Amino acid sequence: MDLATYLERRQRMIDQALEAALPETRGMAGDLSRAMRYSLFAGGKRLRPVLCLAGAEAVGGSAEEALPAALALEMVHTYSLIHDDLPCMDDDDFRRGMPTSHKVFGEALAVLAGDGLLAEGLALLVKAGAEGRLPAERILAALYEITRALSSEGMVAGQVVDLQMEGREVDEATVRFIHTHKTGALIAASVTSGALLAGGRPEQVRALGCFGRSAGLAFQIVDDILDIEGDPEVMGKERGADQALGKATYPGVLGLERSWETARRLVAEGRAALAGFGPEADPLRDIANYFLTRQK
Amino acid sequence: MDLATYLERRQRMIDQALEAALPETRGMAGDLSRAMRYSLFAGGKRLRPVLCLAGAEAVGGSAEEALPAALALEMVHTYSLIHDDLPCMDDDDFRRGMPTSHKVFGEALAVLAGDGLLAEGLALLVKAGAEGRLPAERILAALYEITRALSSEGMVAGQVVDLQMEGREVDEATVRFIHTHKTGALIAASVTSGALLAGGRPEQVRALGCFGRSAGLAFQIVDDILDIEGDPEVMGKERGADQALGKATYPGVLGLERSWETARRLVAEGRAALAGFGPEADPLRDIANYFLTRQK
Repeated sequence: MDLATYLERRQRMIDQALEAALPETRGMAGDLSRAMRYSLFAGGKRLRPVLCLAGAEAVGGSAEEALPAALALEMVHTYSLIHDDLPCMDDDDFRRGMPTSHKVFGEALAVLAGDGLLAEGLALLVKAGAEGRLPAERILAALYEITRALSSEGMVAGQVVDLQMEGREVDEATVRFIHTHKTGALIAASVTSGALLAGGRPEQVRALGCFGRSAGLAFQIVDDILDIEGDPEVMGKERGADQALGKATYPGVLGLERSWETARRLVAEGRAALAGFGPEADPLRDIANYFLTRQK
Repeated sequence: MDLATYLERRQRMIDQALEAALPETRGMAGDLSRAMRYSLFAGGKRLRPVLCLAGAEAVGGSAEEALPAALALEMVHTYSLIHDDLPCMDDDDFRRGMPTSHKVFGEALAVLAGDGLLAEGLALLVKAGAEGRLPAERILAALYEITRALSSEGMVAGQVVDLQMEGREVDEATVRFIHTHKTGALIAASVTSGALLAGGRPEQVRALGCFGRSAGLAFQIVDDILDIEGDPEVMGKERGADQALGKATYPGVLGLERSWETARRLVAEGRAALAGFGPEADPLRDIANYFLTRQK
């Protein structure tokens, strides 16, 4: 099966499960439900849940076992996008060609839709364990990976430094800190949480963590590059947004050519970490390659 | 032991454990650590963690068993206060006599400090289970109570309706929805999560949930009343803030006298739910009474 078909099937599976997990509700808090769903179904690539399911497959498990973590990951990722776009953060009016949450629902509801998706995503994974659908130990191990990636050891720390460094001269260590914390940590947790839900052994999970950290950083470096070289039509947003905000980026520090080299090296390192896995890790290998060729 | 001494000892125990759980960190994201700690150590009454430990005691367990949930509850409660105070929400400049987070650290860092406390609080409880300090099933059951109370079935739904109803005529059902979701759900989850971590039986946890919902609503009604009748010196904030914002409150709907009656009835109902418990539930009984006599 080629990667495009694989991704399409997985995305459809995830979309259907998200629809069932977060149906539209009416009543008093109907606006909250609409705001949460607006961003959750705004055309995301479902990269983190796909990686989570692929992580489960890589250790010989099934995608179904890892589904609760996959859905949680997409919800908490969406929370981070909504908050990142707020006027007090990056002040973005558009994402994926659509008006951002606060442009549609106002700032208060955008903050709360983000808060709600964070709580709801974790609640969904907790529920799968509390109801006994999956072993409690596995759920806790997956939750540990995900909550650590969201905490001040991960995503929020990356976002704080990202904002602080706007318009300032930065070195490679700083931009690496931002990218590994803000993006890399949750991408790595996507792969490892999937593997843990599927009963992966500790040494397998460690190897997948190495893969995820390398591939996750490569993903974000290519993101920086696409902001300069990408096709605005395909991306659904203008070029040059990072530069306009004075963001710390790899091309800003290393230039385009060395940024490409770094991304390629990281993908090679990520794939090398999978040396002990058989063909069941091919989807992860292919996704890492795709990080270098993606257009959006 | 009288309640004042009991509360003081518990608060000290919780403060020490919070200090150990969230020490000041330096380095790149030092500002995030300072912002999180600023609000976490801003003189809170530690009501939710106290209730959590008392919930554990009520089922014959020890306070120590429930401590990870108690700390998580105070962190996620603090997250909700920081976000509630934001300019796009209640736009509060002071809380407990101190400038609010966004006044000190700016809006972006305030949003992120809230996000960080939410993630960090849940991560801390997850960790206690992942490291095997407490049985995985108990941790998951406690997490289930807490994440549901934070989700769009709980706190965020209450906050959305609270904001939507500002300046509008409301009925008792609406203000009850706001209070039970925004405040009551997490107070009830505080008691039940403590009981679950201490191995409480299902019928005990159900009774404690009834207690928590009644007492939690009474707590918030008295909060509404104190906004009108309280001593500004003792409360550390001006009177009349709710009215100035056009908030939906019990006195606004029922008047002061019937609001007091409702609060007293709810406390009596809460205490009645504890009929099956012996003296080990006395702290919960005393705390419910204290809700009616507190000055801040």
